[in-house]
Amino acid sequence: MTESNDAGLTHDAFLNGHVRAWQPRTGYRAATDPVFLAASLPARSGQSVLELGCGVGVASLCLNARVPGLSLTGVEVQADYAALARRNAAENGAALTVVENDLRSLPRDLRAQSYDHVIANPPYYASNTPAAQDAGRDRALREDTPLADWLDVGFRRLRDGGWLSIIHLTERLPDILTLLKGRTSVMALPLAARAQRPARRVIVQARKGGRSPFVLLPPFVIHQGDHHPGDGDHFTDAVRAVMRDLGALDLAAMARG
Amino acid sequence: MTESNDAGLTHDAFLNGHVRAWQPRTGYRAATDPVFLAASLPARSGQSVLELGCGVGVASLCLNARVPGLSLTGVEVQADYAALARRNAAENGAALTVVENDLRSLPRDLRAQSYDHVIANPPYYASNTPAAQDAGRDRALREDTPLADWLDVGFRRLRDGGWLSIIHLTERLPDILTLLKGRTSVMALPLAARAQRPARRVIVQARKGGRSPFVLLPPFVIHQGDHHPGDGDHFTDAVRAVMRDLGALDLAAMARG
Repeated sequence: MTESNDAGLTHDAFLNGHVRAWQPRTGYRAATDPVFLAASLPARSGQSVLELGCGVGVASLCLNARVPGLSLTGVEVQADYAALARRNAAENGAALTVVENDLRSLPRDLRAQSYDHVIANPPYYASNTPAAQDAGRDRALREDTPLADWLDVGFRRLRDGGWLSIIHLTERLPDILTLLKGRTSVMALPLAARAQRPARRVIVQARKGGRSPFVLLPPFVIHQGDHHPGDGDHFTDAVRAVMRDLGALDLAAMARG
Repeated sequence: MTESNDAGLTHDAFLNGHVRAWQPRTGYRAATDPVFLAASLPARSGQSVLELGCGVGVASLCLNARVPGLSLTGVEVQADYAALARRNAAENGAALTVVENDLRSLPRDLRAQSYDHVIANPPYYASNTPAAQDAGRDRALREDTPLADWLDVGFRRLRDGGWLSIIHLTERLPDILTLLKGRTSVMALPLAARAQRPARRVIVQARKGGRSPFVLLPPFVIHQGDHHPGDGDHFTDAVRAVMRDLGALDLAAMARG
């Protein structure tokens, strides 16, 4: 589902083609993480969503494909990614406003807003990891802005009762829970490649002003079976429901069991 | 597998009868948590184990039944529970020394020791929860000693490279991970009643001096199926392997997937 062009871009399909997005061939490339993040949002038509570090916009565009009538704003510090996000928004007919800015110094008009949802897929690797060859990919993957800033800025921009939803490496869960402790209700949804494997990714969803106990949800398993069978992805039915049928990952329902 | 006597005690079987323990009929009663905690220890014959808050000794006795040749010490602040732990140790032929003491003021000779393993099944409920009718049960369930003290005392008594293993409510995982952050490698094993339910309990295992990333293991599922079928426990094969066959919960193997 990928086409390339001469400007070093590829045109990729997400959600079974409901979203198509240009992204740098050699830069940071969106895969399934923004798709699952978008699926996890308890968002309703008419609500506002702020994405911190939106890259080329895949998470916001996937959210837009599932929930019509959202007001979407993306913040992206890298000019070329912000430009692609604007192009992708236009081509997908999405009401996504892209603000090229460092999330730590948001413009005044944006700081005057509060949102129903803030979402983020922050860089996964510590700032002391070796640099990637591609500068844009490097910036998207390395944690030059501390995770604490992502969470702090996100919380400040949420209305009371609004939801912060992030996806990150599970190995960072202790950091995330420590940063969130005491100020919110938190649910964590582990994402596991296979049923009996440790989950490498986790979606953490926190409600501003919430006081409910922490809930660890059963893992969302991505592939069927115990090993990769060689051809095809063999996604679980739950993943197909998200990717093909624009289904939601309903964390509240999972919490009820 | 429970017999009662006139002194208000019951005599209960654990691990399919490999362990039998007297405990107060109306007090704090051990169930499966100490059994799973004991199964999770990477303990080898010849090693030393300190149990903080041992109650009537079920976790240490279950560990003793699976791994012969351990040197076991239990600390218990309630005199009647400590006395039962001594009786249970004798009747099960276990080399378990029981020290009646508050864990925050351990005797000098015990503070001079370091151990290969420290285990604990701390009280599950905050100190501001309503009191239970039974004073002993109340003390065993309510967190009058802060969780931070359990972890601090445990870590101080561990040798470098030794393992701290605790079982607690999953809703306390953020507190536990915050308290352990930065000083150890941590693995967490969620215990779920059924496959698609949030895990209510979690075993957290931390290696003193370890520097590995946090690992969230796949849940250990206790009952088969989606609901209680009415008669019998319908334990999963994995639980039967622990309860009937004295099997281990090998967290390191689970981490390899």
